[in-house]
This record gives sequence, C-alpha cells and structure tokens, in this order.
Amino acid sequence: LKRYNLCLLGCGNVGRALLKLLVEKTTELRSAYDVEWRITGVSTRRMGHLTRLEGIAPDALLADPPGFASTPSPSAVTIKEWLEKAQADVLFESTSLNPENGEPATGYLRDALEQNVHVVTANKGPVAFAFDELQALALAKNKRFLFESTVMDGAPIFSLFREALPAVHLSCFSGILNSTTNFILGEIEAGNSFEEAVKKAQAIGIAETDPSMDIDGWDAAVKVSVLTTVLMGVPLRPSEVQREGIRTIGEDAVRRARAEAKPYKLVCRAERTPGGVTASVRPEQVPATNPLASITGTSSVVHFETDSLPGLTVTEHNPGPRTTAYGMLADFITIARRS
Amino acid sequence: LKRYNLCLLGCGNVGRALLKLLVEKTTELRSAYDVEWRITGVSTRRMGHLTRLEGIAPDALLADPPGFASTPSPSAVTIKEWLEKAQADVLFESTSLNPENGEPATGYLRDALEQNVHVVTANKGPVAFAFDELQALALAKNKRFLFESTVMDGAPIFSLFREALPAVHLSCFSGILNSTTNFILGEIEAGNSFEEAVKKAQAIGIAETDPSMDIDGWDAAVKVSVLTTVLMGVPLRPSEVQREGIRTIGEDAVRRARAEAKPYKLVCRAERTPGGVTASVRPEQVPATNPLASITGTSSVVHFETDSLPGLTVTEHNPGPRTTAYGMLADFITIARRS
Repeated sequence: LKRYNLCLLGCGNVGRALLKLLVEKTTELRSAYDVEWRITGVSTRRMGHLTRLEGIAPDALLADPPGFASTPSPSAVTIKEWLEKAQADVLFESTSLNPENGEPATGYLRDALEQNVHVVTANKGPVAFAFDELQALALAKNKRFLFESTVMDGAPIFSLFREALPAVHLSCFSGILNSTTNFILGEIEAGNSFEEAVKKAQAIGIAETDPSMDIDGWDAAVKVSVLTTVLMGVPLRPSEVQREGIRTIGEDAVRRARAEAKPYKLVCRAERTPGGVTASVRPEQVPATNPLASITGTSSVVHFETDSLPGLTVTEHNPGPRTTAYGMLADFITIARRS
Repeated sequence: LKRYNLCLLGCGNVGRALLKLLVEKTTELRSAYDVEWRITGVSTRRMGHLTRLEGIAPDALLADPPGFASTPSPSAVTIKEWLEKAQADVLFESTSLNPENGEPATGYLRDALEQNVHVVTANKGPVAFAFDELQALALAKNKRFLFESTVMDGAPIFSLFREALPAVHLSCFSGILNSTTNFILGEIEAGNSFEEAVKKAQAIGIAETDPSMDIDGWDAAVKVSVLTTVLMGVPLRPSEVQREGIRTIGEDAVRRARAEAKPYKLVCRAERTPGGVTASVRPEQVPATNPLASITGTSSVVHFETDSLPGLTVTEHNPGPRTTAYGMLADFITIARRS
C-alpha cells in the first residue's frame, strides 16, 4: 500500500470536484491501485496556506464556508514552506490562467518540483510557457509533471499520446477547443444577439465576467500552444499562434452560415512546416463532412493526423468540473502506477 | 538494449504491413524504446512453419513470391515446436476470423503463452471466445496477451482504457464498427443497387468473396463481444448479441433516409443492465446530432459513456493494413515498455 499526502493549491469548482471524486473513488484506489491518500494541505486566497498532517477532512473543505472542528495550523508563508510542513507527495494546482506569462502558477510548480513533490495541474499557463523547463526539472527530481486537464478538460489527450500511441509522429491537428465561443455561436444561430449570447454563457457559468479571454481566442491559442509544445515537440508561445476571435463575424453571417449547413466555428489548427510549426485560431465555416462538424454546445473535439494512423478524432461531450477533476485523478493514478 | 525474436503467424496484408512498419521504425525502436528485433519464424499456409535463428530478411518475405537466398529451415510440425525452434519472444497472429468459435487461432495463442511467448493478435475470435482463459494464462506466465488491432484497426481503444482511463466505469457504448456495410450503404445512397455496392466493396478489397460475414452483422457482433468482454468485464458471446444485418432495409428506404438527413447505419450498442449487459447490432437511422452521424466510407467510430467522463467519442478515418499493423506495433512496444 502506498500512502500519499496530497496538497491542493486552489479549491474552486475544480478543486472541490476533485475532492469529491477522491472521496468517491477511495475504495477503488485502494483495491485496484494500492493507493491511500489524505489531504495534508490546502491553499486558497481566502484561507491562506493550511496544513494538517493527520489529514484535513474533505467534508470540512466542501462545506461552504469551510467548517473545521479545529482550525488547521500553522499557516506557512511560502509555497515551499507550506509543502514541507504538509509533507506533500503530490501537489494539485488549479489556480486561474494567466495567458501572458503563465505566472505565478509556473513558479508554484517549480517550487513544488524542487521540493521533490509530484505536480498535477489543470492550469495551461505553466505548460504553454515553461513545459521544457518543468519537464526537465521533473526528470532530474524523478518526479512527474502531469497536466491532462489543461486541454479538453479530463478527456485523455496527453496520456493517449504518451501511453497508447507510441512511435507516432503527429503531422497536424485541428480542433474546437473553446466551449464558450462554441456555445455563443450556437446561441447566435438560434436567434440571440451577440450580447445576449455572452450573457447566457455567463449565466450558465462557462464565461468569465470579462469574457474576452474566450471571445478573442486567447484561451484557444494557449491550448494550441500546449498541444504543439507537448505533442509535436515544438515550443510555441500563445502569442505566436495567429489569432482571430469571433467578435467580427457578424450575427447575420453566423446565421446564414448555419442555414447553408456550413456553420462558423472557432477552429484551432497547427501543422508542421520545414522550420517548425504554424498555428492559428480563427473562425471558419465547417462543412458537414469535416470531422469537427458535429460539435455543438460545450463539447469539444480534436482531430489528429499522424504517420501511422491517417486520422484520429477525439470528441468530448458535455464536460463539467467533474470531468476536469477526473483528468487530475487519472494523473494521480499515473503517478502511483509509474513511479 | 532488449532483443526480441519475433514470429509471424499469418503473413497476408496485415502481416506484410507489420513487417514494413517494423523495418521503417527500426531506428526509433532502438533509440526511444531500447528495442532490437529480428524475425526468427514465419508461418503461413503456403510456406509452412519456417524458422531461422539468425533472422529472416523482411525483404525476402515481402517479395512476391517470397525469395530466400537459402530456404529457412527446418520446418516444424506443431506451433509449439515452431516457436521453440524460433526461440520466439513475441508471436504476432493475424490469421483469419472464425466467428463461430474462434478456432484454431485460440489454440495457437494458448500454445504460445504456454511456451512463455508474448502474444499480439489482430484476430477477434480468441478475444471474443477465450479472453478470460488467455488473460489468466498470460498473467500466470507473466507474459502479455494484447489485441489492439481487433477493433477499429489500430486505433487505440484497449490501450486507451488500460493506460489512459484508469478508474473509469463504462456504462454503455455505441459505434459503427464494420466499414464494409458502412461503405455499401453509402454506395446505395449514391444510387447503386445493393449488388453493385457489394461488388464495389469487393473490388476495393474490403469485402470478402462471401460478404455475408459483414452484411449479416457477424463481424460487428464479434467486435461488440470483444468490447463488452474486455472493457465492461462481462463476457458476451457473439451469438448473444442481438443481430440484424443490412439485407432487409431496402434500397429506397436507404436513399429516403439519407435525403431526410437521418441515414441508415449498422449501429452497434451495448449497455449495462442489473444482470449484465445487453448488446445489439442493427440498422438504425442516425440523426445529424448523434456522435455517430459524421462517419462515411470505411471510417469507424465508437462512443463511450462512463461514470467520470460523460461522453467520449473516438473516430478513426480511412484505415488500411498499415493502420492495423500499427496497432500490433503499439502492442509490441507495450510489451517492451511494461515487461
């Protein structure tokens, strides 16, 4: 039996869904993977750096506001101090994305790996901006740096290539990877104005108060950057992805395109070139014969072309925080199985 | 560096594609996976059981007819004798399917595992009829029994669940898994008669001289049996899959359904029930909103619903013998990585 001390950095929707999933899968983790776990540290902006070596009860964390029989103690000042006091084995990081430089999350993950702590993140920033550095550090420390939940929530993309597609060379991919814009385009097709569609996306909780990260294609560009960096071995910054959002298409054009059965989608593309990779995020009209065509609502899709499998498409339907949390759980099981 | 003696049982389209792929990936297998290989045995109906410990040149096997500088020798009488003389580490089996009982292939694989030889098969029969037995034998012998290429050619399905979807519970799946019927239905939609469509499928080499295995749903039923047995843990014989082929739909109905944008497909389904699994293969009209809708030609698709990922669809486009061979190569790399 392997015992893991787990620390959560960020405990919003995803962190809470992860806690619930860990509780739900406790018995299976023990019986099928020989794994026991306890939460020895939680850090959020509101609560600060909490630690409790004997374990923090997930129920107490899931209560709103968190209800502790006795306050976990003592608070640490830095991430390293916190992880040390918590005797952390694995850090789950789910803080919010900074699409300009990936900080401060990258620094947190660097600190954790330097402290010999495995790292699982749902945050795209550190992968887009510091994959090579963090991966090298993880190798040097004989720890894992895993990030299944950064693209397409918890759908297996990175583990698919790492474990199930050995000796495959990815020549290009295309995808619809931002669910907010896909939802907004669908609402416009259904007769809503752009502004109404954005408000609806905010109402169901998929768009931020400032929705420009999605609408202007930044979220998708960071995902393209992550995929090219990890799956094609070509580090590409989000700013190097040609990027055009959905503001400029026009409501009439969106509806006309749908009526012609060639709906607009915010399409991500990357392709190997002699010198590296070219990549783009832009609105495109997608005909019904395209592997990306059937995606509606908050679902997402990515289509790969490789030297050995001519075309492989992975589609994820109706994701939610539990889906993202599952990707983090799968990464945790990978750590337990392979290290 | 690990050195593997490989034996090929069956050397038709798939076996030949595997030989080519092994040759093509020789350098990468050495550099990325520490693997060297040589072919020490080949067995076909035409050539008999050939062995040559110093290695049989792939070029000689790929020539038509096979051209050997000196005839490999000596021929063995039984599979066990052959594998022993070839000092086999891995057997690649790609003989043809017997959908009634999986023999004689099951016997070949049993013999190989008993001889402490890893087994990679592209043949669905042994998995549908003897998965539990062969898996238990492989475990007892500390060898692997792998069969990625049995469903959806070389697309990663079994490795996906085994390696990339830990602690997931599959509640149901649906799919279009027989490319011959999918191709035939498309040809009928395009105006051909049923007979013309079958002839065209035979002409491009995807349908057998006796096409009833595909048309009457047997091939699809065996695949459903393999998926429920392996991924749901419920052994289901092909004869236990409710089965209806495409003979009875009628050409007019096929064209009318396409015109209504709800084309007929030969749909595979399986769903957990309190007592086990119910499964079927039958023609269904698939609306455009269905994850299976966009499949045309020889492509195939499977849609999974699980407790942790609400919906995950894997689509494979334009497969060929090289795709099937890739699944066998991936299984070989799994053997080298994990044993």
